[in-house]
Amino acid sequence: MAKVKGPTPQSEDFSQWYLDVIQMAELADYAPVRGTIVVRPYGYALWENVQRTLDGMFKATGHQNAYFPLFIPMSFLQKEAEHVEGFSPELAVVTHAGGEELEEPLAIRPTSETIIGYMWSKWIRSWRDLPQLLNQWNNVVRWEMRTRPFLRTSEFLWQEGHTAHATREEAEQETARMLGVYVDFAKNHAALPVIPGRKTEREKFAGAVYTTTMEAMMKDGRALQSATSHFLGQNFARAFEITFQDKDLKEKYVWTTSWGLSWRILGGIIMTHGDDRGLVLPPRIAPIQVVIVPIYRAESREAVLAAADRLARELAGLGLRVHTDDRDQYTPGFKFHDWELKGVPFRVELGPRDVEAGTAVLASRLGGKETLPLAGLAQALPERLDAFHDELLRRAERFQKERTRAVDDYRTFKEAVAEGFALAFHCGDPACEKAIQEETKATARVVPADAPAEEGVCVRCGRPAAYGRRVVFARAY
Amino acid sequence: MAKVKGPTPQSEDFSQWYLDVIQMAELADYAPVRGTIVVRPYGYALWENVQRTLDGMFKATGHQNAYFPLFIPMSFLQKEAEHVEGFSPELAVVTHAGGEELEEPLAIRPTSETIIGYMWSKWIRSWRDLPQLLNQWNNVVRWEMRTRPFLRTSEFLWQEGHTAHATREEAEQETARMLGVYVDFAKNHAALPVIPGRKTEREKFAGAVYTTTMEAMMKDGRALQSATSHFLGQNFARAFEITFQDKDLKEKYVWTTSWGLSWRILGGIIMTHGDDRGLVLPPRIAPIQVVIVPIYRAESREAVLAAADRLARELAGLGLRVHTDDRDQYTPGFKFHDWELKGVPFRVELGPRDVEAGTAVLASRLGGKETLPLAGLAQALPERLDAFHDELLRRAERFQKERTRAVDDYRTFKEAVAEGFALAFHCGDPACEKAIQEETKATARVVPADAPAEEGVCVRCGRPAAYGRRVVFARAY
Repeated sequence: MAKVKGPTPQSEDFSQWYLDVIQMAELADYAPVRGTIVVRPYGYALWENVQRTLDGMFKATGHQNAYFPLFIPMSFLQKEAEHVEGFSPELAVVTHAGGEELEEPLAIRPTSETIIGYMWSKWIRSWRDLPQLLNQWNNVVRWEMRTRPFLRTSEFLWQEGHTAHATREEAEQETARMLGVYVDFAKNHAALPVIPGRKTEREKFAGAVYTTTMEAMMKDGRALQSATSHFLGQNFARAFEITFQDKDLKEKYVWTTSWGLSWRILGGIIMTHGDDRGLVLPPRIAPIQVVIVPIYRAESREAVLAAADRLARELAGLGLRVHTDDRDQYTPGFKFHDWELKGVPFRVELGPRDVEAGTAVLASRLGGKETLPLAGLAQALPERLDAFHDELLRRAERFQKERTRAVDDYRTFKEAVAEGFALAFHCGDPACEKAIQEETKATARVVPADAPAEEGVCVRCGRPAAYGRRVVFARAY
Repeated sequence: MAKVKGPTPQSEDFSQWYLDVIQMAELADYAPVRGTIVVRPYGYALWENVQRTLDGMFKATGHQNAYFPLFIPMSFLQKEAEHVEGFSPELAVVTHAGGEELEEPLAIRPTSETIIGYMWSKWIRSWRDLPQLLNQWNNVVRWEMRTRPFLRTSEFLWQEGHTAHATREEAEQETARMLGVYVDFAKNHAALPVIPGRKTEREKFAGAVYTTTMEAMMKDGRALQSATSHFLGQNFARAFEITFQDKDLKEKYVWTTSWGLSWRILGGIIMTHGDDRGLVLPPRIAPIQVVIVPIYRAESREAVLAAADRLARELAGLGLRVHTDDRDQYTPGFKFHDWELKGVPFRVELGPRDVEAGTAVLASRLGGKETLPLAGLAQALPERLDAFHDELLRRAERFQKERTRAVDDYRTFKEAVAEGFALAFHCGDPACEKAIQEETKATARVVPADAPAEEGVCVRCGRPAAYGRRVVFARAY
């Protein structure tokens, strides 16, 4: 009889647990080219739900989708000095096409600021052409040394928003607004209690004036940068001569922003909510919210499947994503484990005696089973899915809080980052930040936007602290 | 005062009309790398509607989306002899990545049969793993010599469906089913009266046993291959050792299919329905179905905009895609031309006297204006949009019929393909087909599935005809 083997326990080897769960739940598989993955239907359905939700939020804030090409002339990337320095070590380059060597090698986009900047320089003439509020869902390539499914892959899927504005104020507001959209998505759809704020100079995007970020804590205490929103100032406007005639008839450079979220968020969801039995998926983006497992013998098959079908229609009619597992070749026990591994929030068990009694058993992926009347069961689910979401978020918040310590000396700092987040004062000197990384493997993750104003001295070097508040340090993915 | 310049008239230069309309309606623009384009928001919104509709049809027929990588090892493409012969002249190749030369150059996918075949060889073990019904929406690269926006671009967006089955019959049914989905989409959503059928041996997909296609006629009489569905037999199964243990416990090769539709369909929509004033978009996929143009002076501005807003809400409430053009810097006349250029099916003109009288003027992009009561206007629109669709389809059918001739001698054949489709008998010899192309620029587009059975002799060489029916020949995009 087929049995579902579980993943390596988290406590034994968290890293291996992650890889096991991705394979076993059929989220993704390794592809033949180093660092590339195949996203399988169950993983892709999760990504589609992320996309659909975010895409609606982008459109509601006035953005439109477009598509810019995969190929960028190498010379474009060289126009913004910090940008090329940051990205050139990771570029994949096309040198031959159509059987011939190309005159100019083509970079495969690692991000699209440069090519969008070039097009804007053609499109934007007047203040009437502003703001430009664009987004694209696409694939980008960054050749990474150490890769890991979803978290760090040579090619990945993401969205990249790009906007151009007439004033600095408007561009800074946009930078903040889009980080706000990401935080909203993280908390209210993915149940991730993220910490929003700014990156330090050392950690900012190559070419940005400053980068805002949201950082999440994984179940091993490490941080995951889950989305970023960059204020690019006039850096790309100057590099690509993107100017407009303002209302005062003066020719000015535009102010630009960019912001992105990738399939890395799936890694964050897996490592925040999962447990030793497998995935636990946030209900609002779970591909399947309720799975019905009919339990029958030959003689009860028809009646049980009919009841399961009725319930499934009722749930689908309420807009829920429901699946009935009517595979004959597997036992109910196998199916229970399989759907637990796949992280489906609720399971309905429906046997012949249930059907006769007009009841069903409702099991939550967070634990607990109860027998409920079939009548009204469907109607009760939306509220339970909301409660499931709230509980996931609460659990993750509690965990993050427990593993976060305000520290004022370097010894305690090292202890703190070995198991979670350290809130520490820092001098702001990139050289000191680098030394911390070399000595502890921890990096400055975020200067939290809503941390209280505090003054102190650098946890490592003792010089006066920058930022006017504590900074989150952690080991990061 | 700003004025909308029209495109080059179709009668003067159809090819230039096409390029003009794409630029002027802001569907797309040329990108810096040869043969690549940027799809601008209006063009991308049209593509999104194509995607959404087709994606729903794929899911309704049991397919699931997935994502396979952009990079394919060169050696994979060489495993299927015809496949590599067909695609290697068009490959773009990555030779360097991460600052180093790669050991094995990587092809950028021109299509994904090979990499999906490789993954299937790992995933498929038993008849229980079949059928595999996958689809992906992605970008592919084919280095073309002569490029043209949407129709032939070095990189393009498309969907590629890939399925694997236990039996030949099932795979052949799938091939036919998916062509049927495309035909349904073409007729009932894009208003394109396509001709479904099979490709000749010479025109089939590189690696297929046979290719089915749907061909549409553009307004210059040329043909456009609008989607294809391939029966791949066991060609890729043998190349990639994709086997399964069947119910009879024997190890067998699977049978596979693939099918694709690209943004080329947008070119087909433009060239089938457009006229000298610009685009005419099929209402079911038009980004904007109804545009409201409020007409006011300073003193009537508030009242007119309020009425426009009420109407817009009413239309949106009925699920229609509506846009109110409240740009102060343009005249109503400019706006009328602008939205005609952009092909919006219906325009509502709303002036102060209309608001007082409780009426509005409804103008159709196909001609005709009428004054209607505001009450009930919104409710009348869905039916009118359907009628608009029907009229578009009827017009295109009539045009196709007028420009299609059954011909039995080579002189008349040449006349027919100079202005449309020729229905002719053909011997089926690829060498004769090639000679026809060289002599007339026309190719065998499709052996129509629903043509009556007829016998005859080859229109060029006089040998007995193959196929048992007439074949559609035309000059093609």
